[in-house]
Amino acid sequence: MSRKIRAGLVGVTGYTGMEMLRLIIGHGKITLTAATSRKSAGKTLAELFPHLSGFKLGALRVTVPDMDVLAKSCDLVFLAVPHTAAMDMASALVAKGVKVVDLSADYRLKDPDVYAEWYGTVHRHPQILPNAVYGLPELYREKIARALLTANPGCYPTSVILPLCPALENDLIDPDGIVADSKSGTTGAGRKAVLPTHFCEVSDSFRAYNLGKHRHTPEIEQELSLVAGRDLRISFNTHLLPMNRGILSTIYTRLKKDYSLGAIHSIYVKSFENEPWVRVLPKGILPETRWVRGSMFCDVGVAVDVRTNRLILVSAVDNLCRGASGQALANANIMCGLSMTFGLDTVPFMP
Amino acid sequence: MSRKIRAGLVGVTGYTGMEMLRLIIGHGKITLTAATSRKSAGKTLAELFPHLSGFKLGALRVTVPDMDVLAKSCDLVFLAVPHTAAMDMASALVAKGVKVVDLSADYRLKDPDVYAEWYGTVHRHPQILPNAVYGLPELYREKIARALLTANPGCYPTSVILPLCPALENDLIDPDGIVADSKSGTTGAGRKAVLPTHFCEVSDSFRAYNLGKHRHTPEIEQELSLVAGRDLRISFNTHLLPMNRGILSTIYTRLKKDYSLGAIHSIYVKSFENEPWVRVLPKGILPETRWVRGSMFCDVGVAVDVRTNRLILVSAVDNLCRGASGQALANANIMCGLSMTFGLDTVPFMP
Amino acid sequence: MSRKIRAGLVGVTGYTGMEMLRLIIGHGKITLTAATSRKSAGKTLAELFPHLSGFKLGALRVTVPDMDVLAKSCDLVFLAVPHTAAMDMASALVAKGVKVVDLSADYRLKDPDVYAEWYGTVHRHPQILPNAVYGLPELYREKIARALLTANPGCYPTSVILPLCPALENDLIDPDGIVADSKSGTTGAGRKAVLPTHFCEVSDSFRAYNLGKHRHTPEIEQELSLVAGRDLRISFNTHLLPMNRGILSTIYTRLKKDYSLGAIHSIYVKSFENEPWVRVLPKGILPETRWVRGSMFCDVGVAVDVRTNRLILVSAVDNLCRGASGQALANANIMCGLSMTFGLDTVPFMP
Amino acid sequence: MSRKIRAGLVGVTGYTGMEMLRLIIGHGKITLTAATSRKSAGKTLAELFPHLSGFKLGALRVTVPDMDVLAKSCDLVFLAVPHTAAMDMASALVAKGVKVVDLSADYRLKDPDVYAEWYGTVHRHPQILPNAVYGLPELYREKIARALLTANPGCYPTSVILPLCPALENDLIDPDGIVADSKSGTTGAGRKAVLPTHFCEVSDSFRAYNLGKHRHTPEIEQELSLVAGRDLRISFNTHLLPMNRGILSTIYTRLKKDYSLGAIHSIYVKSFENEPWVRVLPKGILPETRWVRGSMFCDVGVAVDVRTNRLILVSAVDNLCRGASGQALANANIMCGLSMTFGLDTVPFMP
Repeated sequence: MSRKIRAGLVGVTGYTGMEMLRLIIGHGKITLTAATSRKSAGKTLAELFPHLSGFKLGALRVTVPDMDVLAKSCDLVFLAVPHTAAMDMASALVAKGVKVVDLSADYRLKDPDVYAEWYGTVHRHPQILPNAVYGLPELYREKIARALLTANPGCYPTSVILPLCPALENDLIDPDGIVADSKSGTTGAGRKAVLPTHFCEVSDSFRAYNLGKHRHTPEIEQELSLVAGRDLRISFNTHLLPMNRGILSTIYTRLKKDYSLGAIHSIYVKSFENEPWVRVLPKGILPETRWVRGSMFCDVGVAVDVRTNRLILVSAVDNLCRGASGQALANANIMCGLSMTFGLDTVPFMP
Repeated sequence: MSRKIRAGLVGVTGYTGMEMLRLIIGHGKITLTAATSRKSAGKTLAELFPHLSGFKLGALRVTVPDMDVLAKSCDLVFLAVPHTAAMDMASALVAKGVKVVDLSADYRLKDPDVYAEWYGTVHRHPQILPNAVYGLPELYREKIARALLTANPGCYPTSVILPLCPALENDLIDPDGIVADSKSGTTGAGRKAVLPTHFCEVSDSFRAYNLGKHRHTPEIEQELSLVAGRDLRISFNTHLLPMNRGILSTIYTRLKKDYSLGAIHSIYVKSFENEPWVRVLPKGILPETRWVRGSMFCDVGVAVDVRTNRLILVSAVDNLCRGASGQALANANIMCGLSMTFGLDTVPFMP
Repeated sequence: MSRKIRAGLVGVTGYTGMEMLRLIIGHGKITLTAATSRKSAGKTLAELFPHLSGFKLGALRVTVPDMDVLAKSCDLVFLAVPHTAAMDMASALVAKGVKVVDLSADYRLKDPDVYAEWYGTVHRHPQILPNAVYGLPELYREKIARALLTANPGCYPTSVILPLCPALENDLIDPDGIVADSKSGTTGAGRKAVLPTHFCEVSDSFRAYNLGKHRHTPEIEQELSLVAGRDLRISFNTHLLPMNRGILSTIYTRLKKDYSLGAIHSIYVKSFENEPWVRVLPKGILPETRWVRGSMFCDVGVAVDVRTNRLILVSAVDNLCRGASGQALANANIMCGLSMTFGLDTVPFMP
Repeated sequence: MSRKIRAGLVGVTGYTGMEMLRLIIGHGKITLTAATSRKSAGKTLAELFPHLSGFKLGALRVTVPDMDVLAKSCDLVFLAVPHTAAMDMASALVAKGVKVVDLSADYRLKDPDVYAEWYGTVHRHPQILPNAVYGLPELYREKIARALLTANPGCYPTSVILPLCPALENDLIDPDGIVADSKSGTTGAGRKAVLPTHFCEVSDSFRAYNLGKHRHTPEIEQELSLVAGRDLRISFNTHLLPMNRGILSTIYTRLKKDYSLGAIHSIYVKSFENEPWVRVLPKGILPETRWVRGSMFCDVGVAVDVRTNRLILVSAVDNLCRGASGQALANANIMCGLSMTFGLDTVPFMP
């Protein structure tokens, strides 16, 4: 049996870090050799996360992030830190020949000016951007396999880009005027204790935020423009759900012609027939976030509103698994020559 | 001091019935003299609802619905029963000269053919339809004051019609192509025990339903067409939130010209300056369902997405209070010559 | 019509402050003339709390807490700040002859040594302690009426003391060995943003905390010892519920003799027959926190486990209303010569 | 590679059935060859449960339960049907030599009179009772290995028996007077749509039920009496949590002597040192249901209340996994000669 792939995880204390631990423990061919956190360095993972006591990995001691050390001890590093924090780390690791999956937004946008516009800071390593691959396996599997640096997509973009691909590729819809109304569980807002995500401020309530301004907008537009073969703009809007995990996106498009639901559904089924993780639900069935909880699935429901001649797409992903850490692990699989789905065939956690 | 207005409540066991009881107990000038339910007849209200023990009204004994009896003992009757069940009751009571606020959909649509199309049944009293007033006080206060039969609006329509009025009245937006993405708490699905609203099927999940097919669509279109002065169609779509109360609607429209947020916000503030229950939130603040919980408020947030030239409206109402029973009580106030807001100035229940 | 009583509220930004605002707006004879907060001074209440826009009180501007200013402008002051912070404020106000309802723990314990032991700090004004009245109206209504300083009970103690009174007064149970297993909604943990009460750390989970160590223990023992006529100790234990409001306490006692459920139930009904806010539920019915939500009720359920000869009491209160701000307002009513229940007869917020 | 063990599942539509499907899909050596349901026969599992589409097992077609057919096609059958329904099925299968894990209560109680008393019906196969093994692996691993019929423990008993074993075995506590205050997520109430577990009746509320009367009481007493070496009675009391999964039991006992927390904690650690699924948490750390979500762990927290000389135990299990289907699968592993933990080493689903 071959040696396991040694992975490092920078930023272990957030929800994406926690999810990465869950998935790596269940993965047979990638092992975690380093987990870092400035604040929690010195503790074991089981001390940090009591739910991990009893697992071998629970004994791993958290260290401070040091790219030189990681480069020596890891074949691949996951960066689960906020944007701008990941920027230099990724650059340093890549320079040392270490594979990187960056879960932040730092290497997703091809155009550094767009990055500066949306993230309010200059990109310090624009020369690497051309080498970074956008880590959506359904679109870029081959490129990911050859990449040293994969920019893991945002959680929302995963839920918006995938369901729109068949409609744009098959010229079913007007690329202009698309509206995505997305709703996310609160893990998507991170693990930092702030008042807006204090329990009693979220529980039993629902709200919109960042309408027309969410930072995931430019990566959605970048990728959909490539799919459509022309520049497009989308109205992308986000909401906060009183639950932990799950994103559901309802996407409103205008059909170019009168298509029947049956015709469009067939196109969708065919488009994804070789994709193990995109499930086009039967006609009349719409996604529920619980059906994808803890899994890699992106469920897609297709509806046609004949009265307004709209194709309405509904997608559901688990923002932490498919939308972040699971997708990062899938990219690591691909980058390391493993099967994309290895260790990631978990059954949705229902109910 | 003048005699109290005697009201009857048909259908006391559902969530709108319960909410009506809560509001009527707190109302000083309308008193409940009859509450009916076929299944629970014979019990007192306190036996049926332990949270009402200790209140005088708790001693009221539930009876079977009998329009003759109600007509004799009541000045006004609230019908909190499903559509089709209310149809004959309303007709019978009106014939006896009793005021009726019908919380069902039976008298909301002016055109009986539209009713038949969306509700799948022929309207048995189309001759009364012209006399029924659509009970949205901001639009029809004067007519409601003279009405014998008020058709209480649906919960979703209340949240969609009100925020669109200023935009349509002031010709800010294209009446075509409006999309309303609405999300409701689960009380909106009623109190009948069925699997889709069993606790463990809703908790910790989120889903869309009835896309493009929801029965509240035609009443929204009827009223918005009147406001716009021309026929319009809307794409109206609904989702189920894992919480009890509250509707949040995110409404996507296309601006006719380049308007600044400031200009539009001013128009909105002015439009509702005399309406005590419509609160146009400050620029940059978006509604949260908890801010209107248990109250008559319809909060409206205004956002402009300059990148896609859209006016995005966000509204929040409590589906049971403003969206059903509270609005019914406001209509009763108006029909009985009381101030619209009498007994309905409750503070939102926060947190 | 007589002049309204002018009240001040120190500490307006927490959940008890918010609840006080909700209740005072609905109260016709007490008006808020000052609301303070160091952090939020300068803002209006409506700016601080968007759910209060549209109310007159929303225009009140928050000030920094200044006892001299409050003494001049207020007849009574509510202290809704943490223990130790309230200690000097209460002393200063009382010295100026201003009525005070202190929602903190600073004046609940008669013995300053017990205070020091449980709160880890020396009491700076032990000479006032004898004058402070424990503000549980069912026990001390007459004393509260003459008090200048009322120490508002903790939320948990309210739920534990009241249901035990009839059993101890009537010598039904062994005063030793009582166990109270209490569960509280998360508003009980306050509004400070910290990781343990971050949304995703509480949602969809349940945990115990502070077993045998909760600071509400000594006030429970102080009051129950007085009721029992001898010193007693209780095992008091707390848990955190994934919901906003509500405390449910399950209290395990040992019966001194074989009593039937009927006999005990009758004693309970009789004990509270003159108390408008303590509802002894019918035999076989157990409390639910939602039945008291937003109200002053303490619901009590009585069960007898004949197999183990135990009397099991279950009580439910709303921790913010009955357990804090509502009780404070009831005490203010009593202290100001109003009816205890004035303005506090709200219907439980169901569902 | 050896042939997979063929299992049948009777009662696939409930929550324990669903959990069994989740776990069996992830299990490499047991395969499901039959899944039955009277109501859903004819559908595939993926039609019944959209979250299972994309899995091979999703293609399995549900059949009506027929013991003859199951006996021919299965090496082992899981009975996930209500008590009394499982009674004859288990008897019939055992008579045919088929291994059975019965998730119902029908074969848990050794004494048929106790069964009759608590379940209100006569046991129809008392002669088999002596052969049935109570399926708590920590207590009966060897017997389970030789059993043809394993009676899978109830969810609550699993959470109450395990933490009490060391205290009783080591004579630390008085066997009389133990109180268990247990709280369960709503999946524990089953998947039948009834009003008490309708979403809006459970959400944002908390209640006790079945105090002193829960049917899990006799199996707890049966097993604890065996551990203690004498008959004992327990006061066992249950509550419903507004969440899907998880049981937390707080167990109050009286220490026989003054033991330090350290001494007791050491005894607990030692008692379970060879048990992979019982995690005694470090001193000062108390269980949270989310830490065991979706896993086989029973977490145990130990607290000593020196003021009342009580040992307080807190335990947490996932009622569906450890408390039902996962434990059933562990028993199947043992009965079939596999390692107990095979396929059941999943990481708790956090957050």
